[in-house]
Amino acid sequence: MILVADNLQITLPVIAAAVEHRDPAPIQKRVKECESAGAQAIDINSGPLTKQPEKKMAFLVETVQSVTRLPLLLDTSNPCAIEAGLKAAQNCTVPPIINGFSLEPQKLAQILPLAKKYHADIIGYLLTPDSQVPVDEADCISVALELYEKFQAAGLANDQLIIDPVVAPVIWENGVRHNQSVVSVIRNLSDILGFDVKTIAGISNLTTGKIPLGKKLLMEESFLPVLAGAGLSMALLNVFHTRTLQIARACDALLNPGVFSWANL
Amino acid sequence: MILVADNLQITLPVIAAAVEHRDPAPIQKRVKECESAGAQAIDINSGPLTKQPEKKMAFLVETVQSVTRLPLLLDTSNPCAIEAGLKAAQNCTVPPIINGFSLEPQKLAQILPLAKKYHADIIGYLLTPDSQVPVDEADCISVALELYEKFQAAGLANDQLIIDPVVAPVIWENGVRHNQSVVSVIRNLSDILGFDVKTIAGISNLTTGKIPLGKKLLMEESFLPVLAGAGLSMALLNVFHTRTLQIARACDALLNPGVFSWANL
Repeated sequence: MILVADNLQITLPVIAAAVEHRDPAPIQKRVKECESAGAQAIDINSGPLTKQPEKKMAFLVETVQSVTRLPLLLDTSNPCAIEAGLKAAQNCTVPPIINGFSLEPQKLAQILPLAKKYHADIIGYLLTPDSQVPVDEADCISVALELYEKFQAAGLANDQLIIDPVVAPVIWENGVRHNQSVVSVIRNLSDILGFDVKTIAGISNLTTGKIPLGKKLLMEESFLPVLAGAGLSMALLNVFHTRTLQIARACDALLNPGVFSWANL
Repeated sequence: MILVADNLQITLPVIAAAVEHRDPAPIQKRVKECESAGAQAIDINSGPLTKQPEKKMAFLVETVQSVTRLPLLLDTSNPCAIEAGLKAAQNCTVPPIINGFSLEPQKLAQILPLAKKYHADIIGYLLTPDSQVPVDEADCISVALELYEKFQAAGLANDQLIIDPVVAPVIWENGVRHNQSVVSVIRNLSDILGFDVKTIAGISNLTTGKIPLGKKLLMEESFLPVLAGAGLSMALLNVFHTRTLQIARACDALLNPGVFSWANL
């Protein structure tokens, strides 16, 4: 399971100010902290970047890459920003992962083709065309099939696809029920689509809202192994939650074939 | 998921002495501590009880029942001790669970019939007739089918069966691989046998041996949610491991339908 830091977000005032003033230092500091904490990839969550999307995303990618060789995810709904990020990273060995597309018409038209153009992996969200969470597991699967059809029609190779079944906050009325579908989808999608489908889940989504940190951590620590047991490939999470990361590594040791070693924990 | 305390063991000197001298106080104290810690059932692990098995098991059952109304498990390979325990508990609303039988000929002949005679649930271990762990998942399933055949032939009802796929220590050469089979078996057994099969797993088995407590806890906390996600019905564990119990309750809240409430955690 690859651990992707969700800690680089434009919603953090220090990051917003750094982007606004093109000041690399706070961004570099945070990225280094993520890598030290155990991040294996960095999600650059820039938000929609309504003003100067190209310049800002290029600045972000260049700044992050100045201090790390970890893979990047470009997490924005703005196709101009994504393309600028992909261009800024063209010297990398692996293109950034596009995060992401869905059945939303604008994303199909403007974001999905970028994966083809830049040979990038792309995350596909299991959301309805109007960006709602599907009602039940059958609807999730139906969305996944439609999403895969669009993905194939765009001329992409199976190994470029990463499915995000969208973890719901537990406080949503149907949050727990939906998350049961999320677990099933992660477990069954490879059988359904007929190839080894990579999956990603946003662990922090589980506890969105004003919830005491202790309870957030308990939820994360409990749910992440459930997802790992279902076969999750990538977890997007707060890498500063030390125990959650220890548990993620323990899950890898427990769930992957190979000689077990306490030293890996 | 029902949490069964594995904390009442004859291997503990204080419990061994209490049984030897028919001194109820240390046993009662420990059982009360287990219940306070969150135990939902008590495993009476008496060992083989080679001397005075009937008297000792009757003493144990009466002593435990003098301080709790929690369900009991009679955890011994000695059929005389099991029968004495079942007799001592005959005034209970639910007979103790017999823990347990396997394909071992002596257990089939002497322990399995007790479940019929006393209308008790019984745990069936997925072990070969010579008490070895099956090699792989296909072998586990094959053992489960044979075990179920013997169980049916003994005239028992499906809801009396609880399958224990036998968690292996991670330090065993094939421990991790075997435990992957354990997870699959828990997930798939109901489909294979065609009814809702109850399952139990001994969590402490995972870290048998001289392993630092911190690493034991990390393993438990990581593996228990994986088992819960696969549908485990009962977990046999050290209920004094507070965080593991919190995680078990969080898994219940996350994996069971119904309205989520932080208050349940």
